[in-house]
Amino acid sequence: MFNCETQVRVRYAETDQMNVVYHGNYAQYFEVARAEAIRKLGFTYKKMETMGIMMPVVELNCKYLRPAHYDDLLTIKTELRELSDNHRIEFHHEVLNEQDRLLTIGKVVLYFLDSKTQSKSVMPQELKAALLPYFQSPNP
Amino acid sequence: MFNCETQVRVRYAETDQMNVVYHGNYAQYFEVARAEAIRKLGFTYKKMETMGIMMPVVELNCKYLRPAHYDDLLTIKTELRELSDNHRIEFHHEVLNEQDRLLTIGKVVLYFLDSKTQSKSVMPQELKAALLPYFQSPNP
Amino acid sequence: MFNCETQVRVRYAETDQMNVVYHGNYAQYFEVARAEAIRKLGFTYKKMETMGIMMPVVELNCKYLRPAHYDDLLTIKTELRELSDNHRIEFHHEVLNEQDRLLTIGKVVLYFLDSKTQSKSVMPQELKAALLPYFQSPNP
Amino acid sequence: MFNCETQVRVRYAETDQMNVVYHGNYAQYFEVARAEAIRKLGFTYKKMETMGIMMPVVELNCKYLRPAHYDDLLTIKTELRELSDNHRIEFHHEVLNEQDRLLTIGKVVLYFLDSKTQSKSVMPQELKAALLPYFQSPNP
Repeated sequence: MFNCETQVRVRYAETDQMNVVYHGNYAQYFEVARAEAIRKLGFTYKKMETMGIMMPVVELNCKYLRPAHYDDLLTIKTELRELSDNHRIEFHHEVLNEQDRLLTIGKVVLYFLDSKTQSKSVMPQELKAALLPYFQSPNP
Repeated sequence: MFNCETQVRVRYAETDQMNVVYHGNYAQYFEVARAEAIRKLGFTYKKMETMGIMMPVVELNCKYLRPAHYDDLLTIKTELRELSDNHRIEFHHEVLNEQDRLLTIGKVVLYFLDSKTQSKSVMPQELKAALLPYFQSPNP
Repeated sequence: MFNCETQVRVRYAETDQMNVVYHGNYAQYFEVARAEAIRKLGFTYKKMETMGIMMPVVELNCKYLRPAHYDDLLTIKTELRELSDNHRIEFHHEVLNEQDRLLTIGKVVLYFLDSKTQSKSVMPQELKAALLPYFQSPNP
Repeated sequence: MFNCETQVRVRYAETDQMNVVYHGNYAQYFEVARAEAIRKLGFTYKKMETMGIMMPVVELNCKYLRPAHYDDLLTIKTELRELSDNHRIEFHHEVLNEQDRLLTIGKVVLYFLDSKTQSKSVMPQELKAALLPYFQSPNP
């Protein structure tokens, strides 16, 4: 299993007149968290696109338990429970505030697509190699 | 069952560098569609907040089948399958393009909350009365 | 002089916790108003990009006189005071609410650029021809 | 003179189909930079609102010289050239990329308003005291 934590400070622009973060903005927080998770592995999503692979989101699921507020320093936890061996990859996210209270739970499913042909592709070898150690059983 | 159709023209700001509508922006399209569905019933969400009831989103689920593009005139279908009789209400959405192709499927769950106490509330009577005819069986 | 009026309904997502439209969102309203102004002339910005000409914004100026609120049906006035004969074009905007009160004044400067070479270009002939009648003096 | 530098990583959501940061999103970058400038002084904008003073933006001016791209780590420079002694305050911003190239220049004017009465107010004494040392002439 691969885990990563990223912090995001809530912007004023991201609040709405309910005095909380607008629910649609969590998609951006998850996006930031995924990008930082990939960066932590020595790779970047930007590089993936340069290599001709893009990752459109095909599914988004959010549960909003408690609101986030302006200026909150949120922790976005990212979890990869399985090492993708096909065109599909699934990220699990949790958003927590500074009091360590769980605010939001998210699941995002993405595809690996060939940018030119739009056909299904797989995770770049370089990224897979960086992820592999996290998914090998310690006691074979 | 209550149905409503709303149209939204895709803004340049809503696209991303994949040349499609950023997945997180559909939450806004669903929000617009819900607001227009309520307006069609002779009520407004704005009025609801004035009356002291607010409707935070507690769950969002999206499936992205095909991308929407800049300047597309999208049709957002909204469906209320049940008449809420407690604090919870569920909207089903479909996004179609001008070629009538289904692009996105969404489900949004919201709560009725008392704005002051933040405690659970129910649908305002005025809105319920307007919805009732859509849920009465034609053959009693 | 060419004029156009477009209406935009304020989305909940566009408000912030000051209970008004976040100031940065007016750039989107102006964008919508420009796109509709071009559409009114029988052309579209989308078509322009297909032809290989893009229009990046190079300058944005806004004065915020009064706030816009959730669900307001705003009128965005767009004015083209001169017929561009080089790479530069200037749009003037005014945002008014339903009570016809002036909320915001904007000026947006854009360039016509060749999408491939990124070099300066000019307004497509087809658009210019559609605009010409608005800039011809009635009494020669 | 008071200066501050803040870094912002460009999100995918912030790009548009021109493959650059959508021009309207710089307002958010400037907002983040102002908030961090105030935090650097041991104060927060959040605290200011709690004290009953809010700061609506009344003017925004941007010049876009070069585009910012996805995943760029931008540096937002913030400059306060004068110590406000009335209801008006002016921030100057510059956005630079990792190659230290100047991308965007911004000026944002805000008012200090009493949240309850909406009447003009002034900078909170605590913030003014923190800023004062930056505006005192070294050689009286």
